Amino acid sequence: MEIDLGKSILGRNEELARENRRLFDSAGVFVLDVLASPGAGKTSTILATIAALRDRYRIAVVEGDIASKVDAEKVRAHGIPAVQINTGGACHLESDMVRRAVDTLDLGELDLVILENVGNLVCPTEFDLGQHARVMILSVPEGHDKPYKYPNIFQIAEVVILNKVDTMPMFDFDEADFRDVMRRLNPAAPIFPMAATKGEGVEKWATWLAARIEGVRAR
Amino acid sequence: MEIDLGKSILGRNEELARENRRLFDSAGVFVLDVLASPGAGKTSTILATIAALRDRYRIAVVEGDIASKVDAEKVRAHGIPAVQINTGGACHLESDMVRRAVDTLDLGELDLVILENVGNLVCPTEFDLGQHARVMILSVPEGHDKPYKYPNIFQIAEVVILNKVDTMPMFDFDEADFRDVMRRLNPAAPIFPMAATKGEGVEKWATWLAARIEGVRAR
Repeated sequence: MEIDLGKSILGRNEELARENRRLFDSAGVFVLDVLASPGAGKTSTILATIAALRDRYRIAVVEGDIASKVDAEKVRAHGIPAVQINTGGACHLESDMVRRAVDTLDLGELDLVILENVGNLVCPTEFDLGQHARVMILSVPEGHDKPYKYPNIFQIAEVVILNKVDTMPMFDFDEADFRDVMRRLNPAAPIFPMAATKGEGVEKWATWLAARIEGVRAR
Repeated sequence: MEIDLGKSILGRNEELARENRRLFDSAGVFVLDVLASPGAGKTSTILATIAALRDRYRIAVVEGDIASKVDAEKVRAHGIPAVQINTGGACHLESDMVRRAVDTLDLGELDLVILENVGNLVCPTEFDLGQHARVMILSVPEGHDKPYKYPNIFQIAEVVILNKVDTMPMFDFDEADFRDVMRRLNPAAPIFPMAATKGEGVEKWATWLAARIEGVRAR
């Protein structure tokens, strides 16, 4: 006898993801899942996005981490509601964790919820959370070869941010090669170069995101 | 009925890890497991280690990746035997993968086997591979707060390399804070600052590793 536990966990997660998506849709809230390696600049990108869009939209953040609450504290320091999830060892967020977190928020008072997933290029790919879009952040210091090694996460993302571009002179990053691989893996995904901590390149990304938010609000 | 599949997979892995360790010990080969985020500089550190130690020791490398064979090709370009493992989606190496890889090498002709684990700060922590030591590489661009968020991997490492220290002026990296957290998480672990691609700081690390290799050879 074989029990395919993997499949049943994934099946249950997908069911809950559909429920999450219905909940977000009915509240008119756009939900963005943020994916990246540890230290690629997820929190910095989220803070830059908040700075760019907080005058137009009501924003909250759900922070996923193995341990600690430092990211939620950073977000709250900017006057934005933030819920910290500690996954207790799991290398990805799951739909039920997201649901418990958003249940502590007043969705009727929000336009945008940003989910910061656990820093990982592998585990989150299999877990739909009910988000409307996934953004994958690659940072220049990680190297241009990452899509070769972790193709799946670059394929499931709807949009890619190339972060820390201000450090390009310090690193041997072949941007043409990176864009070439991305064109093959995920030709539809726009790529936004950015230096989130410097505020560089944030406007184009924020414009893209605002258009997607309006799409959900217009339903 | 409940089947704790997790435990049984881990139990089987540990049994195979013990077999691997007996095999490595009887061949007098030191085995180093290299852990880090994607893009922290695992391959560059391995190449710098090879350059520092190849005159004294016979070295081979086992490369673990989700996909691609670029890392094994980089190592082979330096005239060092390299075996590529593609984990087919798994976010860590396991003992049976390592065993199949080293079975293609002539252990009697080697002093040091370096295992480059999959780029991940979570999954590899639970999987003993039969290695003699684990080195955790944190790169400066990732930020000094990583031990707060991923404490376990910093605890299971015997030694830590702080890589890309030449980029310190570009990043807001608080080295004193990093060392302070490490003293609490893992007080025995030495920390070697390094810029692997520049060859900076490699000598002290190579001296530490050579002492550990001699320890296994002297048994």
